Amino acid sequence: MCGIVAYVGHREACPVVIKGLKRLEYRGYDSAGVALMNGHGLKVYKKKGKVVALERELEGKETHSTIGMGHTRWATHGEPNDVNAHPHYSFHRKLAIIHNGIIENYAAIKQALLKKGHTFTSETDTEVLGQFIEDIWENNGGTLEDAVRLALQEVVGAYAIVVMSETDSTQLIAARKGSPLVIGVGEENEFFLASDATPIVEYTKDVIYLNDYEIAVIKEGDLKIVNLDNTTTTPYVHKIEMELAAIEKGGYDHFMLKEIFEQPRSIADSMRGRVQADAGILQLGGLRDYMDKLARSERIVIIGCGTSWHAGLVAEYIFEELARIPVEVEYASEFRYRNPIIKEGDIVIAISQSGETADTLAAIELAKSKGATIFGVCNVVGSSIARATDAGAYTHAGPEIGVASTKAFTAQVTVLTIMALEAAQRKGTISESLFRQLLVELESIPAKVEMVLQAADKIKEIAYIFTYARNFIYLGRGLNFPVALEGALKLKEISYIHAEGYPAAEMKHGPIALIDEDMPVVVIATKDSSYEKVVSNIQEVKARKGRVIAITTEGDTDLPGMVDFTIEIPKVHSMLMPLISAIPLQLLAYYIAVMRGRNVDQPRNLAKSVTVE
Amino acid sequence: MCGIVAYVGHREACPVVIKGLKRLEYRGYDSAGVALMNGHGLKVYKKKGKVVALERELEGKETHSTIGMGHTRWATHGEPNDVNAHPHYSFHRKLAIIHNGIIENYAAIKQALLKKGHTFTSETDTEVLGQFIEDIWENNGGTLEDAVRLALQEVVGAYAIVVMSETDSTQLIAARKGSPLVIGVGEENEFFLASDATPIVEYTKDVIYLNDYEIAVIKEGDLKIVNLDNTTTTPYVHKIEMELAAIEKGGYDHFMLKEIFEQPRSIADSMRGRVQADAGILQLGGLRDYMDKLARSERIVIIGCGTSWHAGLVAEYIFEELARIPVEVEYASEFRYRNPIIKEGDIVIAISQSGETADTLAAIELAKSKGATIFGVCNVVGSSIARATDAGAYTHAGPEIGVASTKAFTAQVTVLTIMALEAAQRKGTISESLFRQLLVELESIPAKVEMVLQAADKIKEIAYIFTYARNFIYLGRGLNFPVALEGALKLKEISYIHAEGYPAAEMKHGPIALIDEDMPVVVIATKDSSYEKVVSNIQEVKARKGRVIAITTEGDTDLPGMVDFTIEIPKVHSMLMPLISAIPLQLLAYYIAVMRGRNVDQPRNLAKSVTVE
Repeated sequence: MCGIVAYVGHREACPVVIKGLKRLEYRGYDSAGVALMNGHGLKVYKKKGKVVALERELEGKETHSTIGMGHTRWATHGEPNDVNAHPHYSFHRKLAIIHNGIIENYAAIKQALLKKGHTFTSETDTEVLGQFIEDIWENNGGTLEDAVRLALQEVVGAYAIVVMSETDSTQLIAARKGSPLVIGVGEENEFFLASDATPIVEYTKDVIYLNDYEIAVIKEGDLKIVNLDNTTTTPYVHKIEMELAAIEKGGYDHFMLKEIFEQPRSIADSMRGRVQADAGILQLGGLRDYMDKLARSERIVIIGCGTSWHAGLVAEYIFEELARIPVEVEYASEFRYRNPIIKEGDIVIAISQSGETADTLAAIELAKSKGATIFGVCNVVGSSIARATDAGAYTHAGPEIGVASTKAFTAQVTVLTIMALEAAQRKGTISESLFRQLLVELESIPAKVEMVLQAADKIKEIAYIFTYARNFIYLGRGLNFPVALEGALKLKEISYIHAEGYPAAEMKHGPIALIDEDMPVVVIATKDSSYEKVVSNIQEVKARKGRVIAITTEGDTDLPGMVDFTIEIPKVHSMLMPLISAIPLQLLAYYIAVMRGRNVDQPRNLAKSVTVE
Repeated sequence: MCGIVAYVGHREACPVVIKGLKRLEYRGYDSAGVALMNGHGLKVYKKKGKVVALERELEGKETHSTIGMGHTRWATHGEPNDVNAHPHYSFHRKLAIIHNGIIENYAAIKQALLKKGHTFTSETDTEVLGQFIEDIWENNGGTLEDAVRLALQEVVGAYAIVVMSETDSTQLIAARKGSPLVIGVGEENEFFLASDATPIVEYTKDVIYLNDYEIAVIKEGDLKIVNLDNTTTTPYVHKIEMELAAIEKGGYDHFMLKEIFEQPRSIADSMRGRVQADAGILQLGGLRDYMDKLARSERIVIIGCGTSWHAGLVAEYIFEELARIPVEVEYASEFRYRNPIIKEGDIVIAISQSGETADTLAAIELAKSKGATIFGVCNVVGSSIARATDAGAYTHAGPEIGVASTKAFTAQVTVLTIMALEAAQRKGTISESLFRQLLVELESIPAKVEMVLQAADKIKEIAYIFTYARNFIYLGRGLNFPVALEGALKLKEISYIHAEGYPAAEMKHGPIALIDEDMPVVVIATKDSSYEKVVSNIQEVKARKGRVIAITTEGDTDLPGMVDFTIEIPKVHSMLMPLISAIPLQLLAYYIAVMRGRNVDQPRNLAKSVTVE
């Protein structure tokens, strides 16, 4: 979380930085700020709130500068306000710093600086780091680059930083450990820095992913990369394929709505080249050398957070049912602080849209240290998790900007389904006919998702009726249980309505006490082996006067008479149902949030990619 | 769920039945009814609501009868009202029936009877069964006993039934499959029937547990038990140890409060004869022959519902950490409808307070069919689950009457902890010193729980402040995560406030959007290895103006300055913390519910023991 952008080159830096901050705003938006060299020396402007508040602040200011850096924040230390916003000046204002991540030993460093007579204007760990670098610079006699390196050698924690100094208007120094940083190599010796490629892509496709413990020094139009031990490394320039259109709204009111409607294509993209139903062929290129190992594995541990954890729960059902491999799904944050049992032959699958989720990354490192083979399922190409894993499969959903994940979820489920199917086939635990059938049905998913999207107006009407609901319960059984969790999470995230998912039969063991005429209950009641049981659960809810919105299989004539509202979705094999049943729940959450006047793409308190613990 | 009681003998039946219904009311209380033979033939009286409503209905009626049966209902088919209440007359009113469970093929039987010209006054499956029995009795020429037997041979589903006929005022016919039924053998040839022993214990200690597929025929002071195939079986008379005082409130306002305060003793009872810290000895008698198998197992699957599922999650952490055996915790309702992977050497542990939970029982049967070795952890001696498992350990918490489970939870955790410790010792995965330390600390738990209970008044004050909260979030990490889930469930069950538990670090991945000044957050922040991380999570909540109630370790001087309220609990090894940290959350839920004027012991929509799916 938090967004970083910086520029040095022949252009006006301020518009580049502000535009970049807007593209990055989905990463955090508690406050924003920029640092410029505008002829009056090193100047910092910052403001609580969105980037537009910062723009207003800059009106009428002298912003001419060919170097600049900006930050949009998701608060960890200290509440969101003007003072805690980045950039932070150092004590003597010789430099300014922006920072993503958490400096864990900041209190000790602060104590030492306080003893030397320093004072602090903010509560942030970032200001401490800035003052620390300046203090070394002033007292050790070396260059700013030396000071940054020496300071970072002392730091415990995670960071991506950019430093500007008042003494050199051609110099940007950046460093990373645990928090991503991308360098864009532009034309005429210009350089861009950003926490992800989205602010860079409209200027250049040539990027360098900075590695942990690396420092990038841009000075007088040259780029040098050194390690913390001061050895120089040669950067590898990647060509990125992201198109500008992919990170713009394209006529939709919100990124989230655009991304929901993109799913027929994004799901197809995540299958492209991997599924050939007519030939009965399935292949995940990135896992080719590891597929036998997966098929032979005694146990799979899936780790993720939030929506990715839900995708993992779906995968658990599919892997266990088809490939007969026991699966354990763990919250990354819990996994990493235990002493998890990893045996030889165990496979760990890490799921993360951004590929930067701090808890998931740390869990991977722990699993690695125990000798596990680790697969990654990420969306962002070249991300930290993609690079930290032994092998993996990208979800190819395209950039996801809406903070509430939608197309990334269905793409994750698609890739995990392919993985499970391929493992089942190698292991011989799936019949050839079922395998073929599921391949054909997989290929039909995009068209079926399209059909669900055509019901958007009906879902909008239902959303209108429940706009002011205070609570929601979501129920499902089997593979639809994690979908219920995911549907509830969507509503929570963007409407701030307290929604909770449950396996339908657990209602009786407590949550049914919540049911009365004020409690809407969304039940995924598609026709599968647990249909009759779900209907019994609906009757229990109706007997307590709960209002039921049922997601039903098309042609179900029984449920409409039993519940308050139905949303029909096409038939599909129960193993693939989550790819369809998730869609109406995304739309329901979206429309309710819009009708409540929420900022759907940037819900309060959240950030897109959680790069702090 | 649903309570059954019946009597035939020398006493007045009506007061016995009414008193019994009140003792059983914790099993369901949507409606209640009785059937009597009062000189005007077979008479049924029934009423929506609690048993007191039924008593009011009976005022001024002729209730003299030495035979009678009664029922208190938790609705499954048809809403709770007078008509759907039990007992149900048959079509020609020759018999009346009361029933727990669900007749799955009732629709088909009903169709056949409708064709014969029958009509139905209720929507229940029970009325269908009663008419079906009468129809056979009228048309097949045999006795009522024959008719019951023939009817039950056709029935698919679960049931405990009692039938009375207008032709014989000495005869009660009862039968069970999947739903418990206890026969009390009294003095002077009197008999009691009930869905559990609580209504019987004040009259006699001699009971017979009816088995599945058995029919009990009481006639002219004699008892005969036959199987569905009409072979006679010899019943085994058990002596029960339950004391009347154990099922009365003993000066407390509610059973729940009494049971919370009983925990120092109930936890001690669940350790009695099992833990000898001074000698370094641990033993679970009921598992003696299976302990090696447990220690050698490659994988443990724990199944349960509601609170028992939470106890299973606690056990997962302990088994994995100490005994290094991978554990999977499953909702019984989900497990039973999948094709679960059970390998030779896998152990299944089923947890249920009542030992009658329908989903858990069905899950056990499925696991058995796959060849698993099954352990039971139940509270009710002689319950169906205790009898269906290969081995087990009773929790010895004493009868739990409050619908929201409290002392059963801590007793389950105690027994599971002992089990994990013994397995770890046999396996050699725990050091002798840690083993000894944990035994000593286990023995100290009752005294520490007592200390927490002394803070009841402080917790009551906090409860007062949050009486009208609309939502609550509960957070914990590690072993305190399942405790957070359990704390949220308690509040849900008895106060009807929507409360939800989360692993603390997951907040950032969505739920933090719910946080504002109206959202109280309970955080279990005891001093253990994840303390610092939990403090970071608290800061994230405070930065969004959430109101935080922290459960802290005594002597923590940092958190009081950071959060709104603290509740101190004694230090204990983190593996045993759930036994302590659960207590303040039980009290918080209790006091909030009382202040909201809720019926704490009989929360709406719930029932104590969930004997339907």
